[in-house]
Amino acid sequence: MTIVSSLIEKLGAHKIKVGEALKERYIHIWKMDQPLSALCAVLPESTEDVSQILKLCHKAKQPIVIHGGLTNLVGNTETNGNEVVVSLEKMNKILEVDVDSRTLTAEAGVILENVQTEAKNNNLLFPLNFGAKGSAQLGGIISNNAGGLRVLRYGMTRNLVLGLEAVLPDGTIISSMKKIIKDNSGYDLKQLFIGAEGTLGIVTKAVLKLVEAPKSRLSAFVGLNDYNNVVAFLKFMDAGFAGILSGYELIWKNTYEVMTSSGSPSKPPLPYNYEYYVLVEILGSDQIKDLEKLETLLEVAFNEHIILDAAIASNASDLNWFWTIREDVHVLTSSTKNDQHFDISLPIPLIGEVINGIREELMAIIDIDKVFSFGHVADGNIHFIIGKHHQSDELIHQINEVIYSKLKAIGGSISAEHGVGVHKKGYLHYCRSESEMALMKILKKSLDPHLLLNRGKIFDI
Amino acid sequence: MTIVSSLIEKLGAHKIKVGEALKERYIHIWKMDQPLSALCAVLPESTEDVSQILKLCHKAKQPIVIHGGLTNLVGNTETNGNEVVVSLEKMNKILEVDVDSRTLTAEAGVILENVQTEAKNNNLLFPLNFGAKGSAQLGGIISNNAGGLRVLRYGMTRNLVLGLEAVLPDGTIISSMKKIIKDNSGYDLKQLFIGAEGTLGIVTKAVLKLVEAPKSRLSAFVGLNDYNNVVAFLKFMDAGFAGILSGYELIWKNTYEVMTSSGSPSKPPLPYNYEYYVLVEILGSDQIKDLEKLETLLEVAFNEHIILDAAIASNASDLNWFWTIREDVHVLTSSTKNDQHFDISLPIPLIGEVINGIREELMAIIDIDKVFSFGHVADGNIHFIIGKHHQSDELIHQINEVIYSKLKAIGGSISAEHGVGVHKKGYLHYCRSESEMALMKILKKSLDPHLLLNRGKIFDI
Repeated sequence: MTIVSSLIEKLGAHKIKVGEALKERYIHIWKMDQPLSALCAVLPESTEDVSQILKLCHKAKQPIVIHGGLTNLVGNTETNGNEVVVSLEKMNKILEVDVDSRTLTAEAGVILENVQTEAKNNNLLFPLNFGAKGSAQLGGIISNNAGGLRVLRYGMTRNLVLGLEAVLPDGTIISSMKKIIKDNSGYDLKQLFIGAEGTLGIVTKAVLKLVEAPKSRLSAFVGLNDYNNVVAFLKFMDAGFAGILSGYELIWKNTYEVMTSSGSPSKPPLPYNYEYYVLVEILGSDQIKDLEKLETLLEVAFNEHIILDAAIASNASDLNWFWTIREDVHVLTSSTKNDQHFDISLPIPLIGEVINGIREELMAIIDIDKVFSFGHVADGNIHFIIGKHHQSDELIHQINEVIYSKLKAIGGSISAEHGVGVHKKGYLHYCRSESEMALMKILKKSLDPHLLLNRGKIFDI
Repeated sequence: MTIVSSLIEKLGAHKIKVGEALKERYIHIWKMDQPLSALCAVLPESTEDVSQILKLCHKAKQPIVIHGGLTNLVGNTETNGNEVVVSLEKMNKILEVDVDSRTLTAEAGVILENVQTEAKNNNLLFPLNFGAKGSAQLGGIISNNAGGLRVLRYGMTRNLVLGLEAVLPDGTIISSMKKIIKDNSGYDLKQLFIGAEGTLGIVTKAVLKLVEAPKSRLSAFVGLNDYNNVVAFLKFMDAGFAGILSGYELIWKNTYEVMTSSGSPSKPPLPYNYEYYVLVEILGSDQIKDLEKLETLLEVAFNEHIILDAAIASNASDLNWFWTIREDVHVLTSSTKNDQHFDISLPIPLIGEVINGIREELMAIIDIDKVFSFGHVADGNIHFIIGKHHQSDELIHQINEVIYSKLKAIGGSISAEHGVGVHKKGYLHYCRSESEMALMKILKKSLDPHLLLNRGKIFDI
C-alpha cells in the first residue's frame, strides 16, 4: 500500500488532497502561481491526527514538509515532489484567553492577526507584530522564532511562548501546555522546537504570553547625520522612558526617500536632509503625559545635538502614516528589479561602519542598481533590499558573499529573524562554527534518525 | 595512571586539590561543616583547561560534579566520593562591558553581585536579583536558569543570556559568544545548557543582556483580604504603569506577622489586619512623577475596594526597610525547626484557592508546627517554609506529596526556579509526562553517552 493510500485509510479521504485538489495548492503566499508538487497534502484536524500521520510516515520512512502560512522567506515550505505535505491550516481554533493568567491558548494553524485581535478584545496585547500578520500561522511563527517590530521591548517569539505541544517524527506527542511563567522542572523541551524550522517536530498547540494592553501610543520620526548619535539617541530614549520604548527603527536616507516620494502613497514627515531616519514607538499608560515627556526628551536631544529634526505622531491617523512608511516594503520592491533580500544581525555599535561599508562595496558592483537598507536597529537587525540589472546565480552569490562574509569576525548572524531554510544554508559557516554545526546534527539525528521532517532545511546531513 | 594523576600531569598540581586541601572544601554555602568527599577538585583557569579536564574524564569514563557558588538548594553539588569535582571559581573575570550593545561578557565563576555592580558603574542594570547574589556564580545561575524578584518585568536568566560558551562532556567547546539580540541561524544551542543543571555541558562564559539603569525606584506595601483582589490589583498596577511594574510579591498574613514582629529587625509597615500583603516595586524614569502616579493609582484602587490599605516607600531607607522584610528569609527559618522548603509554580488565578487548601491540609498534620507562604505571585511562583516538630523521611515525604500532588491537574510545576537536582527527582512525574521524561533522556544520552556530568541529577537513567 502506498503512503497516500495508508493516510487516506487512516485519516479519511476528506483530510487528504491529491490530484486536482493538490494542484490548486502552492508553496508561497507571495507566489501563488507556483503549484505545489508533492505526493499529497494532509490536513490534520487534531494533534492525534498529526501523531497518526507521523507514525505512518515514520514506519514508511516517508519524508514530510510542513506547511503553515507559507510566508516562506527562506524556502522552508519548498518540496521536491516526493514528500508528503502536512498543513496545519485546519487546526485554527483559539482555545482560550485567560485574562488573569494573561495567556492565550491556540492551535498551530491560527493566524497572527486573529491572536492580536482576540487579545485586544480582552484588553490585552500579544506584542508580536510583523508584515505577514494577516497570513502567518502560529506553528510557523514558533518554528521560525519570528521577531518583528517590538523585539526591543517584548523579545522574540521564544520569549512569548509559555506552553507548547509538538509531535516528534515518530508520532510521540510532547505536550506541556502550561500557563506558568517559571518552570525549572528539568529540561525546557519547548526550546527545542522554537526556531528549529520544523526539523525536530511539528508544533500543534501553544500557550502564548500576553501583556496588559497599553493605554497610549506615540511615535516620532527623527533625523540624524551621524550613526554614533543613532546609538546615543537609542540609549537616551530607552533610559528616558525607562522601559516603555517599544520600537526603534532605522532607515537609511536613500531608502527613506523612496519610501516617501513619487512611487509611495506616503508623504515625508521630515525633509530629505539627513543621513539617517529613526522611527520610535512608545507604548505607555497616559497619552497626555507621555506626549509631554516625549516633547521634553526630543527637545533635550535636539539641544544636545543628538538629533537634528523630529516630527511627532500622537493621533491615529499620524501613527498610521508613520508606520505605513516603515511597513510598506512593497514600495521598495516595486522600485527594484531582480530584488534580493537580506536579514542580518550584528552588534549595534558596529552597524554604522559595517553597513555603510557594505553599501559602498555593493554600489561598486556594476550589475547592482539600488541598495536599500533599514531595520530594527535596537535589535542589531538590518534588512537589505538590493535591486539588480539582471539575475544570475553568480551575481546572487557574489552579493551574498559581500554581505555574509563580514559577519563572522564581528559576531553577527546571517539570519536575524527569517531563518536559514534552503536559501541560506550554504552560508551558515559565516556565523556558526563546525562544532556548533556538529551539535545541531547530533540533535537532528537523535530526534529524527530517518531525517523525515523538513529534510535538507538548515543543513544537509 | 589514575585520573587524579592524569589531571595533575595535564593541568599542573596547583589546579588540583587533593588530600588536606580537599577536606577544606564543602558542598553547600549554607552548611560549610559538611566537607567535600571526592577524588579531587579541579580548578580550571580557562575554557581550554575545562576542555582538557573533560577530555581526560571522557576517556577514563570518569564522572564529574560541577561546582559554582554552592547555593545547592536541590542537591546538585552533592558528591558520592567517586567523582571529580570541577569548580569554576578561578574563572572569575568580567571580560567586557559594552555600554552601547548593553552587554556584559564574563567567565562562569563571576559572582552575581559583581555583575550587578559592574553594570551599575556603567549606568546600566543587570536585572537578575535574588537572595544568594553575594555568592552565586554565573555558571550556576545559567545552568539553573535562576529567577528571583524581577522576573515579572525582565524574565528569567534564559531571557538575559545573549551569548554562551560551554564545553560538552567529550571536551568539545561550543562557543557562541555573540552580543546580538536576534539570531535565527539554526538551532539556538545555548538553550540546551540554560537550566540543564550542568547535565549536558559545563558553562564557561556568557554574554549577558543589560538594560539602561532606571532613574527612579518606588515600592508600596498593600493590604488585601480577598485573593481575587490580589490578581485584580496586579492587573490594575501593571496596566496603570504600562510595563514599569518590576516586582509584585505576595506574603500571607501569618508570614508577614513573623517577618515584622519580635524575632525580626523590621517593624510592620501595615497593621496585622489583612489576609494578604503585597509588596510592589516600580522602576521608572522620574521619581516625582512616578510617585504622583503611584499615589493616584493607590487611591483609585482603595476607592474601588481593590485594596484596603497601603504604605509607600519613596526614599532609600524606606525601600531598604520594605525589601528587608521580604528578602530576609532567615527570620522565618530561625523561627522554625526542621524546616522544609518549597518552590512551586501554578497558574496565577488558582493560587488563592490551591495554596490556602494546601495550607489547611498541612496545618491538619499534627507533626507540623508552622506553615509560611510567600512568593513571586506575578510569576505564579510560591514558596513554602514549613516548620515541623520532628524530622523523619516519612513526614518529609508526606508533606511533599500534599504539595506536589496538587500540581499535575492544574498545570503547575514542582520547581519554579530552584531546579530538580536530587531532592525533587522522585516527584518530577507530578509535572512532567512520561514522553517528556523520555525525550529528556534522549537528549542526555545524545550529548553525554557515558552519563559523566552531574550523573543522577534531575533523573536517573
